[in-house]
Amino acid sequence: MSALYSRVAFVGLGLIASSMAHAIRRAGLAEQMSGTARSSETRAIAREIDLVDLVCDTAAEAVAGADLVVLCVPIGAMERIAQEIAPHLAEGATVTDVGSVKQAVIDAVAPHLPDHVQFIPGHPLAGTEHSGPRAGFAELFDNRWCILTPPEGHDPDALDRLTRFWQGMGANVDLMDAAHHDLVLAVTSHTPHLIAYTMVGVADDLRRVTDSEVIKYSAAGFRDFTRIAASDPTMWRDVFLTNKDATLEILGRFTEELFVLQRAIRQGDGALLHDYFTRTRAIRRGIIEAGQDTDAPDFGRIKT
Amino acid sequence: MSALYSRVAFVGLGLIASSMAHAIRRAGLAEQMSGTARSSETRAIAREIDLVDLVCDTAAEAVAGADLVVLCVPIGAMERIAQEIAPHLAEGATVTDVGSVKQAVIDAVAPHLPDHVQFIPGHPLAGTEHSGPRAGFAELFDNRWCILTPPEGHDPDALDRLTRFWQGMGANVDLMDAAHHDLVLAVTSHTPHLIAYTMVGVADDLRRVTDSEVIKYSAAGFRDFTRIAASDPTMWRDVFLTNKDATLEILGRFTEELFVLQRAIRQGDGALLHDYFTRTRAIRRGIIEAGQDTDAPDFGRIKT
Repeated sequence: MSALYSRVAFVGLGLIASSMAHAIRRAGLAEQMSGTARSSETRAIAREIDLVDLVCDTAAEAVAGADLVVLCVPIGAMERIAQEIAPHLAEGATVTDVGSVKQAVIDAVAPHLPDHVQFIPGHPLAGTEHSGPRAGFAELFDNRWCILTPPEGHDPDALDRLTRFWQGMGANVDLMDAAHHDLVLAVTSHTPHLIAYTMVGVADDLRRVTDSEVIKYSAAGFRDFTRIAASDPTMWRDVFLTNKDATLEILGRFTEELFVLQRAIRQGDGALLHDYFTRTRAIRRGIIEAGQDTDAPDFGRIKT
Repeated sequence: MSALYSRVAFVGLGLIASSMAHAIRRAGLAEQMSGTARSSETRAIAREIDLVDLVCDTAAEAVAGADLVVLCVPIGAMERIAQEIAPHLAEGATVTDVGSVKQAVIDAVAPHLPDHVQFIPGHPLAGTEHSGPRAGFAELFDNRWCILTPPEGHDPDALDRLTRFWQGMGANVDLMDAAHHDLVLAVTSHTPHLIAYTMVGVADDLRRVTDSEVIKYSAAGFRDFTRIAASDPTMWRDVFLTNKDATLEILGRFTEELFVLQRAIRQGDGALLHDYFTRTRAIRRGIIEAGQDTDAPDFGRIKT
């Protein structure tokens, strides 16, 4: 594939940005890449591993001359970054982001950008529990979805180019309204993460069940919660603070349902439990058929 | 390894029994295996795939002459099976089980067994979301834990032989008091399963978020809940009905914690959320160090 952008600039060099850098190199999607990170340690690592062509000390330098700017910082830092880069953005550049909440990013970023750039927010649905510039790998987006939420009045050519860019990194691209994105993700990602964090916190607190027992016997179900509860704390704090309404709505539904099942346990209502567990089984089959998980025993985990 | 038992009899031929049969063959742990299942279809499949040497139509036939009897039926069926097999158990035989709750199995089974057999309950902490005699594979127990809960006054030789038997199938063996087992498992398995079932049920119910979106975007966290919410409904109904007290206790703790986090989201208390998410991260590291999960990106899933 020929280069789609002459210079791609990353603001933030964590798991997503570093995976994008590897995927861009794999497919030759950019002639040059620049990047910056707030911490000098992160910038030093990026230089050491040659993550991008040019590691800059400031966001202003990194975005200068870039025709694609990718904001890869926690959502709480988006507004400050938008203010900082706005005067330095090239005429006709596209600005995008990879934040897990879209309406909050639009509110934080759009008002600060000049009219001569295109802002097309994005969210690649991919991740691991690892963070930082060394965590990235080129395959992270392969066969995963990237949701773009272009605003009204966007330039179709800019959207088309950004779509082909994500496809070049291996992703499937979908377009969605920002508010709908935030609700869908509250269901498929934000609330599950909060619940997993809670369950791991409970286990951690229990005095009669020692840490070592929780860990030793984790393969019985708990293990699957700990992976998602090991994700980056700053990123997730900002997700919950900025997707508050949708998350609280789904949490309310969750608590309601949990109380129904809790009462069924207390009252010994086996029929209700059995019906419920039968219904939830079907959705798993759909996920495997959609290629979003492996059907292999034990999740396809590598045997230790 | 030389055979530890001359005849191992399975009552129930699902995922665990069929995996045991493969693991026993792999290591040559039994001279002969017999088995039975309630459904004639399951028995026909077991015959077709040559799962054990002798597939019997009744539990009474299956256990006749066996020096090890393994009860692999849902917990709710244990008492009926114990009554049925009791008159047919060989002198000096060991009876064990693989149920996920131990005190309830002891209460259901022990009173019915004759004095001339040893009852040593067990619980291998291993499983997949698949069920039935075709779901088994020899590696299921490799490097997983099997917890035995021998009663007071048990025969040390019988315990020693059963321990070596599980080790021969690849498992590590721990001994525990039945009540403590039930509490530990309420934390590491039963409550996580109930929560996963609940979350999948909520997603399934939501009308604005279509099935197809929930499935398409499941890789963002929800996917990991669907696997555990796809486990056998009958088995899990019985787990919750029989480990009621410990599950309700842990669920109560879970709800308390969830409300703390929910309030932090509502009030915008980012510091509380960040602290909480930082604390839960550490436990993940322990699980990987204990060899109970892979550190590989994306869980070690096979790429699709």
